Amino acid sequence: MASHSRKRSTKAGLPPGTLVHIGTKKGGASRITLLDYDANGVRESEVTAAGLSEKIKLARGIKWVNLHGLGDINSIEQIGACFNLHPLVLEDIFNTEQRAKLEDYGDYLYVVLKTFGYETAGAEQRIYSEQISLVLGKNFVLSFLETDGIQLHSVRDRLRSGKGQIAKSGADFLMYSLIDAIVDSYFVILERLDEKTEALETELIARPQPSTLQSIHRLKREGVFLRRALWPLREVISSLQRGDSPLFSRNTLLYLRDVYDHTIHIIESIESLRDLTAGMLDIYISSVSFRTSTVMKVLTVITTIFMPLTLITGIFGMNFKYLPGLEWDLGFFVVLGAMTVISAGMLLLFRWKKWL
Amino acid sequence: MASHSRKRSTKAGLPPGTLVHIGTKKGGASRITLLDYDANGVRESEVTAAGLSEKIKLARGIKWVNLHGLGDINSIEQIGACFNLHPLVLEDIFNTEQRAKLEDYGDYLYVVLKTFGYETAGAEQRIYSEQISLVLGKNFVLSFLETDGIQLHSVRDRLRSGKGQIAKSGADFLMYSLIDAIVDSYFVILERLDEKTEALETELIARPQPSTLQSIHRLKREGVFLRRALWPLREVISSLQRGDSPLFSRNTLLYLRDVYDHTIHIIESIESLRDLTAGMLDIYISSVSFRTSTVMKVLTVITTIFMPLTLITGIFGMNFKYLPGLEWDLGFFVVLGAMTVISAGMLLLFRWKKWL
Amino acid sequence: MASHSRKRSTKAGLPPGTLVHIGTKKGGASRITLLDYDANGVRESEVTAAGLSEKIKLARGIKWVNLHGLGDINSIEQIGACFNLHPLVLEDIFNTEQRAKLEDYGDYLYVVLKTFGYETAGAEQRIYSEQISLVLGKNFVLSFLETDGIQLHSVRDRLRSGKGQIAKSGADFLMYSLIDAIVDSYFVILERLDEKTEALETELIARPQPSTLQSIHRLKREGVFLRRALWPLREVISSLQRGDSPLFSRNTLLYLRDVYDHTIHIIESIESLRDLTAGMLDIYISSVSFRTSTVMKVLTVITTIFMPLTLITGIFGMNFKYLPGLEWDLGFFVVLGAMTVISAGMLLLFRWKKWL
Amino acid sequence: MASHSRKRSTKAGLPPGTLVHIGTKKGGASRITLLDYDANGVRESEVTAAGLSEKIKLARGIKWVNLHGLGDINSIEQIGACFNLHPLVLEDIFNTEQRAKLEDYGDYLYVVLKTFGYETAGAEQRIYSEQISLVLGKNFVLSFLETDGIQLHSVRDRLRSGKGQIAKSGADFLMYSLIDAIVDSYFVILERLDEKTEALETELIARPQPSTLQSIHRLKREGVFLRRALWPLREVISSLQRGDSPLFSRNTLLYLRDVYDHTIHIIESIESLRDLTAGMLDIYISSVSFRTSTVMKVLTVITTIFMPLTLITGIFGMNFKYLPGLEWDLGFFVVLGAMTVISAGMLLLFRWKKWL
Amino acid sequence: MASHSRKRSTKAGLPPGTLVHIGTKKGGASRITLLDYDANGVRESEVTAAGLSEKIKLARGIKWVNLHGLGDINSIEQIGACFNLHPLVLEDIFNTEQRAKLEDYGDYLYVVLKTFGYETAGAEQRIYSEQISLVLGKNFVLSFLETDGIQLHSVRDRLRSGKGQIAKSGADFLMYSLIDAIVDSYFVILERLDEKTEALETELIARPQPSTLQSIHRLKREGVFLRRALWPLREVISSLQRGDSPLFSRNTLLYLRDVYDHTIHIIESIESLRDLTAGMLDIYISSVSFRTSTVMKVLTVITTIFMPLTLITGIFGMNFKYLPGLEWDLGFFVVLGAMTVISAGMLLLFRWKKWL
Repeated sequence: MASHSRKRSTKAGLPPGTLVHIGTKKGGASRITLLDYDANGVRESEVTAAGLSEKIKLARGIKWVNLHGLGDINSIEQIGACFNLHPLVLEDIFNTEQRAKLEDYGDYLYVVLKTFGYETAGAEQRIYSEQISLVLGKNFVLSFLETDGIQLHSVRDRLRSGKGQIAKSGADFLMYSLIDAIVDSYFVILERLDEKTEALETELIARPQPSTLQSIHRLKREGVFLRRALWPLREVISSLQRGDSPLFSRNTLLYLRDVYDHTIHIIESIESLRDLTAGMLDIYISSVSFRTSTVMKVLTVITTIFMPLTLITGIFGMNFKYLPGLEWDLGFFVVLGAMTVISAGMLLLFRWKKWL
Repeated sequence: MASHSRKRSTKAGLPPGTLVHIGTKKGGASRITLLDYDANGVRESEVTAAGLSEKIKLARGIKWVNLHGLGDINSIEQIGACFNLHPLVLEDIFNTEQRAKLEDYGDYLYVVLKTFGYETAGAEQRIYSEQISLVLGKNFVLSFLETDGIQLHSVRDRLRSGKGQIAKSGADFLMYSLIDAIVDSYFVILERLDEKTEALETELIARPQPSTLQSIHRLKREGVFLRRALWPLREVISSLQRGDSPLFSRNTLLYLRDVYDHTIHIIESIESLRDLTAGMLDIYISSVSFRTSTVMKVLTVITTIFMPLTLITGIFGMNFKYLPGLEWDLGFFVVLGAMTVISAGMLLLFRWKKWL
Repeated sequence: MASHSRKRSTKAGLPPGTLVHIGTKKGGASRITLLDYDANGVRESEVTAAGLSEKIKLARGIKWVNLHGLGDINSIEQIGACFNLHPLVLEDIFNTEQRAKLEDYGDYLYVVLKTFGYETAGAEQRIYSEQISLVLGKNFVLSFLETDGIQLHSVRDRLRSGKGQIAKSGADFLMYSLIDAIVDSYFVILERLDEKTEALETELIARPQPSTLQSIHRLKREGVFLRRALWPLREVISSLQRGDSPLFSRNTLLYLRDVYDHTIHIIESIESLRDLTAGMLDIYISSVSFRTSTVMKVLTVITTIFMPLTLITGIFGMNFKYLPGLEWDLGFFVVLGAMTVISAGMLLLFRWKKWL
Repeated sequence: MASHSRKRSTKAGLPPGTLVHIGTKKGGASRITLLDYDANGVRESEVTAAGLSEKIKLARGIKWVNLHGLGDINSIEQIGACFNLHPLVLEDIFNTEQRAKLEDYGDYLYVVLKTFGYETAGAEQRIYSEQISLVLGKNFVLSFLETDGIQLHSVRDRLRSGKGQIAKSGADFLMYSLIDAIVDSYFVILERLDEKTEALETELIARPQPSTLQSIHRLKREGVFLRRALWPLREVISSLQRGDSPLFSRNTLLYLRDVYDHTIHIIESIESLRDLTAGMLDIYISSVSFRTSTVMKVLTVITTIFMPLTLITGIFGMNFKYLPGLEWDLGFFVVLGAMTVISAGMLLLFRWKKWL
Repeated sequence: MASHSRKRSTKAGLPPGTLVHIGTKKGGASRITLLDYDANGVRESEVTAAGLSEKIKLARGIKWVNLHGLGDINSIEQIGACFNLHPLVLEDIFNTEQRAKLEDYGDYLYVVLKTFGYETAGAEQRIYSEQISLVLGKNFVLSFLETDGIQLHSVRDRLRSGKGQIAKSGADFLMYSLIDAIVDSYFVILERLDEKTEALETELIARPQPSTLQSIHRLKREGVFLRRALWPLREVISSLQRGDSPLFSRNTLLYLRDVYDHTIHIIESIESLRDLTAGMLDIYISSVSFRTSTVMKVLTVITTIFMPLTLITGIFGMNFKYLPGLEWDLGFFVVLGAMTVISAGMLLLFRWKKWL
């Protein structure tokens, strides 16, 4: 969590609409690709921000402009100018510390989504999130990514192949496909969490260690992190699939309903995770408690057996002149026998009390 | 939980509408049965997917097509074509990792429900879920099951007997009967959980063990699993019984209201289970804590009694030349007496302090 | 909880409307009484199910048919036929595992309520619930009880006396009076729980035992049981007092509002109970923890004092030929003095550290 | 809590509208004061219930009838007759175990509020609640109090002084002033709870004792008690300030909005208290746990140092004829030196392990 | 929390509208600045309360009156008179123990917000809150601050510079800018909390101490405090951005939507903090528990090894005349060897049991 509002305060005091990159990941230089298609075919080209408006005019059918790398303010501003985006949208694209959200600007919809990955931080793997901004207009879709965005590759491949519904449908179906691809990518993270959970549960029952505790806490943090990041998603997708915006056709809404189901499924999985990690902590404490109790029993058994025996040797080790039995030939063996009987009795007592 | 989004990620990146079987249970080859009936009687036959459309044309009255085994993609696609199902419905039938849901496609309703069973996994019994997809149209009901679906046998038997309301009512009453049979089957699982809970509580109070802890955790997991699987059911049945769809007659809605009550009853039972397992963990910790405390007391009592006695023998075991009493004939007995008095005093003290 | 869905599964697979008694209590043979009254007076007679329809025709004014004992299916069916009740209502009357609910069948209202009592199960007192079904029609009220239903005696007595508003008002006021009497009877259970809670709290602070733990768990279970049984009541009474049904007059609605207040009061008391039992478990653990800590201190003090002393006696008990002091006349007393000083010092140290 | 539904069950079985005093506090004999005022001035007189209707006719402007002491059923019935109150209102005035509530009887509003105080019960201070019933009609306000009701003195004083808005406004403003005075009095209780919380937190960190535990539990109970008593207040004031009733002028509604803010503030404070007491219990357990751990360490250190030393003295205390070193002049000192080295080494080891 | 209703009770009993300063911070003498601007430029002057109405008449365009220091009742009353504010608004400005709220008085909106800071209280840093009251009218904005209000400096600077949208927009945009600046300032506090959380987590895992416990509790309190203070903010900003008031232009509403997002982000962060601190307490207890368990094991190992050895020396230290082996030359070495074997065996046993 800590790292997620880290740089935010540097912006306090600046006028709204100021483009300042907020966030922990640097996007590097921007790369823009333009992809336009209609039922006849697909064209794809890499463009510069300056040359974009020129190219757009020549494009036919649906246009998909994809930018990745948020390092270059100018590019974003030029795309914004080209498609008449509100300054606040540009600011939000640039500020990668947004919640998932949906904003309806009338002519276009602005959607912020999150993707997740694991990065190596020292010995441990840390989860991080990246932001994907999507803009859906009448005939175009814009996507702004921090990094390469492998989540969207499959959509591009499908477009290139020219097969399936996507090539024959409108920009809204492209938008849906992108959102669907992003939501599907969450299942990968969920599976990873599930595997961690299972491994931890096994470890927990076999041999709880302080490191188990740390792992549980880390898992919990990841759960809190994902929960916070994905919770607003419900509202976003729900509001999309309700069909409040005329940009979506009735057919695409059916598909969005499907995405909505996946979203609910994901959020419920994370809620379950929360329940389970809470339970794990309790089990950890219980296990340790039980072990302490067992160790205590061993200690008590040992002490209870040896203390009386030691006392007996002490008694016959006293230097009294007249101490009965010392002179007796069998004295030692009688005492030894008594000690054996006592310890055997003790052991039986403990067994009977189910302490052993 | 782990296993329930396991295979999902394999689908990430595929176009929507692609039929890929997602889920842990393999359905095996599909078997299709067609059952058509009106007030005059019932006809029943096993059909192939290819021959289905032919047979449908000849069928009279209400048609119930039941498919079990999701191993054969073609069969499902052919049934879909035969009844004009949306590609998304086919995809959802095939993907057995759905939440319970209700989707209104205008001409027909698509309902996803879950059934539960126990399978043996190693030493333990694990709960698993199967998916049942139901489609209700004007004159037909389709049901798609992973396996044989013994839950629905009773409905078929009632139809065959030709008695009761079901044979005289429309497809909506058949749909209700199927849903009712599925919801009723949950009570069997609930009872099993109740029995486990009672057995665990007895064990918990009699002799808490680490294995008790594992059982509690397993019970908790099953609760979380069922809760997640059944929670959406509330919404599904509630929305059915509100009568939003014209496919249900007023009379059938009365019956659905009854199913809704059962659903609420089931969900509340699971919520109670959650409360109770949480309480069990606390009781486990408390019991172990109490036992540790008891063991500690025994240890302390033993130590407190024997340490002073051992000290006394140590004192009279020192090799000082002039040590008063050693030469005295009664010395040993006086010391032994003193030791008896001390230990008796200690015991009285502990009894008075209620430690024994 | 366990016992409350026990017999439910035996019904899975039967057609709806089948009258099968579900529930743990057997009602025994049915007894039916008919009570009819108007402003002029009250008539009361015991009737058979067969003779009921005859008697009903002769009755004047408001009719109250009361049946107790659900052992006789025929009687219930005949009453149902007599008042045109829907098969589902009959099924629900017979199935005593219902949630409290209100169902509006147009001509009549069907209300299910619960009453509670304590039964002796072995050494402990267990709470159980019985079901009361009420049907309100234009001029009649039907009540179906598992057992005698002492909760309703007061209403009958008031009717017999012919005094008060009840004799002059319609069937809706009789219905209200019955519901009010049932809701009032919950306060008796609440008081019993309150007394248990107080007794437990005293025990908890004075001397926590494992049996205290069991009592807390039992109290918790009763809370969970009552919560589950009474929670739906809120909805039932709320919906009654909103006046959705034309069967209730404006005046009676004012009285129902009063019952609603009581209902909320009862539900809030049970919620508080939940908070308090949760707190009790924490206090139990805390108390046991504290006691362990105290016992540990005693053990540590004893060990810390006696171990050095025993070491000293050990040192002077060694058999070295040249051991300084052994030959000295005062040696023994000097060592004894040193031991006294050491133990006194230890005691002071512990006192200073507030361990004693 | 216990005491708050105590006497309720005595009413079970009585007809509605029966005036039976339910509640723990006896109001004693009733005293009635009549205060009537308009812009010209205020008249105040003590009246008997019998003479009230006479006096009311002579009164001008706004009339405020205040009764305290609920011991006299006749008085309340006569006031009820005088202002045409519904029998249920009279019953509720008399039954001091009500929740805070607002009931709109068309011509007048009936509001039940609670006030709180501390009473000495044995060694401890217990919180208790009293009920204030307010009735607002067109030109009158009635107030029924269990005891003197110092909360309302300030309102009377303001009226007497003839200054401020209150004397010039209608009965609704008087009603608002009374409610405001009552809500303001809750802050005194809140402060007391805050002080207790702070004192407890200090004690908790300085020196946790079982008595601390009891205090936390008592604080928790008070929180539960207040929460239950004040929670319905939110709804009451919210519904008042929404202006559903025509009895309140637009101007007074603005003031009620202010009271609503205070109410929310109070309820949130109590919710915070709940969070904090829950945290305190955890801290108590943690502190005790930590202390046990510390004591354990001391015990282990002591045992670990002295046991080997005692063993050494034991070895050289054995009576073997040929035991090397015993005859050596420096033997004793070498052994003593070795013992010193061993214990020093142990201490260093423990220091290095940060146990000391 | 304690300090936040502290002085409130002093007001109980006073008539509404009385200006009494409630709150812990003294504002000191008031200072008033007037800033008026239109597209042509900005004028700024320090004014007295008395001279304000004069100056206002001369001002052009948008007027922003800022007062800081609430020590002077007259000034606030004069500003109130100047802009026709309702007495309740003046009272609320003065009473700094308000919740964040929005009140619509038709001609103007009254908004209460909170700012936060840290003050040094003894050894620790305590969070405190200050209140900012904002009034938005047709052409004016009033701001009332307890202290200097550095949060608003940036807005003034932007106005002075004459650049950006703010100088060209209406009073509503100024209002938005102020709210935005205040909300942005919360991120600074959030970051501080995040840093504390991280530091605590490190400490928790490395070396839990009682002081860690105190820090967790302090963090928790701060979370509770912020939660309570910021929770109502959601409603305030939500209601602003919904555009219920005609005072806000459509354009400004877009910007307010942005502030709303930040608000949700902040509230969610605080909710996460709550989850995390709860988890920390559990980890603390778990760590201490584990450590106790480890210490116990060491103690048990030591005791189990040394007790048998000591017993053996005791046996051969007894003074029996006939004790086999004592006369034997190798006796001592055999016994020593046996002792070595026994302790080695014990160590192996413990290693095998994974206790070492």
